[in-house]
Amino acid sequence: MKFYPLDFIQAKKHGRAHSADDIDCFISGVVSGKIPDYQVSAWLMAVCFNGLTFKETLALTQSMANSGKIFRWDKKGPPVADKHSTGGVGDTVTLVVAPLVASMGMRMGKHSGRGLGHTGGTIDKLESIPGFRTSLSESEFREVVDSVGCAVCGQDESMTPADGLLYALRDVTATVNQESLIASSIMSKKLAGGASYILLDVKVGSGAFMKDLESAKSLSRLMIRLGRESGREVKAILSSMEEPLSRAVGNALEVAEAIRVLRNEVPENDPLRILSIEIATRLGSMCGFGRIGQVRKQANKLISNRSALDRFREMVELQDGDSSVVDDPEKILPRADRVVKVNSQKGGFVKSCDALQIGELVRDLGGGRKSKTDEIDPAVGVVLKKRVGDSISKGEVLCEVHTNGAIGDASVKRRIIEAFGIGKRPSAPRKLILK
Amino acid sequence: MKFYPLDFIQAKKHGRAHSADDIDCFISGVVSGKIPDYQVSAWLMAVCFNGLTFKETLALTQSMANSGKIFRWDKKGPPVADKHSTGGVGDTVTLVVAPLVASMGMRMGKHSGRGLGHTGGTIDKLESIPGFRTSLSESEFREVVDSVGCAVCGQDESMTPADGLLYALRDVTATVNQESLIASSIMSKKLAGGASYILLDVKVGSGAFMKDLESAKSLSRLMIRLGRESGREVKAILSSMEEPLSRAVGNALEVAEAIRVLRNEVPENDPLRILSIEIATRLGSMCGFGRIGQVRKQANKLISNRSALDRFREMVELQDGDSSVVDDPEKILPRADRVVKVNSQKGGFVKSCDALQIGELVRDLGGGRKSKTDEIDPAVGVVLKKRVGDSISKGEVLCEVHTNGAIGDASVKRRIIEAFGIGKRPSAPRKLILK
Repeated sequence: MKFYPLDFIQAKKHGRAHSADDIDCFISGVVSGKIPDYQVSAWLMAVCFNGLTFKETLALTQSMANSGKIFRWDKKGPPVADKHSTGGVGDTVTLVVAPLVASMGMRMGKHSGRGLGHTGGTIDKLESIPGFRTSLSESEFREVVDSVGCAVCGQDESMTPADGLLYALRDVTATVNQESLIASSIMSKKLAGGASYILLDVKVGSGAFMKDLESAKSLSRLMIRLGRESGREVKAILSSMEEPLSRAVGNALEVAEAIRVLRNEVPENDPLRILSIEIATRLGSMCGFGRIGQVRKQANKLISNRSALDRFREMVELQDGDSSVVDDPEKILPRADRVVKVNSQKGGFVKSCDALQIGELVRDLGGGRKSKTDEIDPAVGVVLKKRVGDSISKGEVLCEVHTNGAIGDASVKRRIIEAFGIGKRPSAPRKLILK
Repeated sequence: MKFYPLDFIQAKKHGRAHSADDIDCFISGVVSGKIPDYQVSAWLMAVCFNGLTFKETLALTQSMANSGKIFRWDKKGPPVADKHSTGGVGDTVTLVVAPLVASMGMRMGKHSGRGLGHTGGTIDKLESIPGFRTSLSESEFREVVDSVGCAVCGQDESMTPADGLLYALRDVTATVNQESLIASSIMSKKLAGGASYILLDVKVGSGAFMKDLESAKSLSRLMIRLGRESGREVKAILSSMEEPLSRAVGNALEVAEAIRVLRNEVPENDPLRILSIEIATRLGSMCGFGRIGQVRKQANKLISNRSALDRFREMVELQDGDSSVVDDPEKILPRADRVVKVNSQKGGFVKSCDALQIGELVRDLGGGRKSKTDEIDPAVGVVLKKRVGDSISKGEVLCEVHTNGAIGDASVKRRIIEAFGIGKRPSAPRKLILK
């Protein structure tokens, strides 16, 4: 049977389901360039209206995964785990989880992305460590994982090229926000990454792409099913992204904060620490390391005895970064010219801190990108001195803004004040992990 | 206000209406090439789902008309009329109507299209007359109209470039069949053509793009309103396209048939003659030439006294064609190698003759195009010897197929037999003009 892109578009426009073969022909045509962008985008828009069935979504996911190199891990080594976050503000979990799960006895070789919009990217963060190389050959990457148990490098162009092409088009044709397209994009990359145990951290709230719990739940269920039907063990947790996850937002600042967690210098109720331990625990339990309670205890121990920190140090060293960063992050990491303190204009309790507004502020300070080719400034960012639930007096410091002057201080202060909600009474504590 | 194509697409995706200014910016961006095809096609698909309001359709029509040259006619001369057919099989009405309305005292300077798919194009037909030039400069075109009252030339590239670009994309993205897009495409060209009196012939039936009466009515009403809001007098008739309009289908064969009508050699109940007279009559009445009955009588007279034929002869001559074609079309027009007679396999009455199947057969014989760059064979085609309602005996000739062997005779015969429905009893006569 010959494949006709026009008939394929027409079928979706009329709400008919595609066969797996047709989806595979379509994806091959996208990658070979035989199907022009304008036909792809017409199809994407038709999908936004008429959706894809589960079978179609699975076929799309697998065709995209198979459109490039599939990573195969040696079956004899420790279990291979992976995690994925749907993106948030101050979400620097990977920097803690990768060395933590390595110290627990798993392997985690991650291909991570760069930040776009108001969310940060793991690769951008790691590159703020002097010398750190995120561009590794496949053998270098495997060597680091074999030796340390973890490695983080940039996306390999030869993996899931179809997803890269579709994503670039979705971004400019208002077709990003469709559940099957989101799920197949994420899961095709996870399948190509080759891990057997995958934990999805789906963010919900103002700073996330999913604004409400229902759509986050639905996306999670779909991704779990796609992974399982493809022979992987997949679980998901839903976590809140109303306030920034980490106290620090900005590339170098988040690396420093992750190191503080790994140095066991943050309190036990720190959200970044809690979520990182939770994700590592779930992965450990999926790998058969014991019951949840036991595994969680072990994960906590590997933080407090600095075993996870050692893995981080080794990874930085093997990826050519200055590993003394783990001993003195302030000294090694780039620092902004000035730190502007923003004081609260009233007293009371912090009710809210809008993750989206903080993320956009950091982007505008130079810490993020408005378009893919923008250079980022690793030093800038925001350190929250007060978190939701904290009490605050009038004039007390709300946060410190690390700036190189990309936007005026007055505007910075106004935006910080707007991002925070201060109330008279303490609000009921919000749950970090929703499900 | 700056215009963002992404927001524009998003607005239509969410079912919001565009402002006229935004539509104008969009069309400017399409013509300048600043908005890439993939964004245009995503928008077109969103329009197929969420539609356009009348206001939006009007803005789109006017922006497209204004995207290129607008033809202006001297106000002092005779009234300027135009007609448009939504396309059919054997629809060679323009060749009769243009000289007829010229002889009635109107001007009709038509920019016509080429055939695509199963429908023929006026320009292709005229080019079967040896020497006939369809590519005229603006001043040549005006000269022919001023001198004869009518001229037919090919589409001027500098007119409605936006429509050309959008149409080419619609054709390959399954977004052709949307009422507002169809109406704005047709009416933008009519507005740019500059006529004050416009008659739309909307075809309904198997051989037409509109398969049912309701959608044809709705399209007509929309086009009339678009024209009137733009200061033109517009009327529409709905005519049947179940069987081919003309007895002859194929380029040279249709020219010969139009000449037979103009030579007053066809019976008064000939559908091509009836529809041509009807369209000319309606236009005459719109121009204030009198009441319908009077104008129709006059139109018939100008056929029977060969005044319209003289205009056709003059037009052919001024456009460098061999004008002796009007005296002996068989001799002057190209002829196919062979004429294959197809006989009926049973006796009875012709119940149906599928216009789409006949149109596709003629296309496959070489008389039409599958893609825009195909060369056409002017000589081939089908002459129907029996029309719907006629009685036929077993073995009697159903039609004559003029062929140069592009497809085998056996296949030709099979397809002709399939296209005809023969019944035992005469069926109730079908109306040609539906409304």
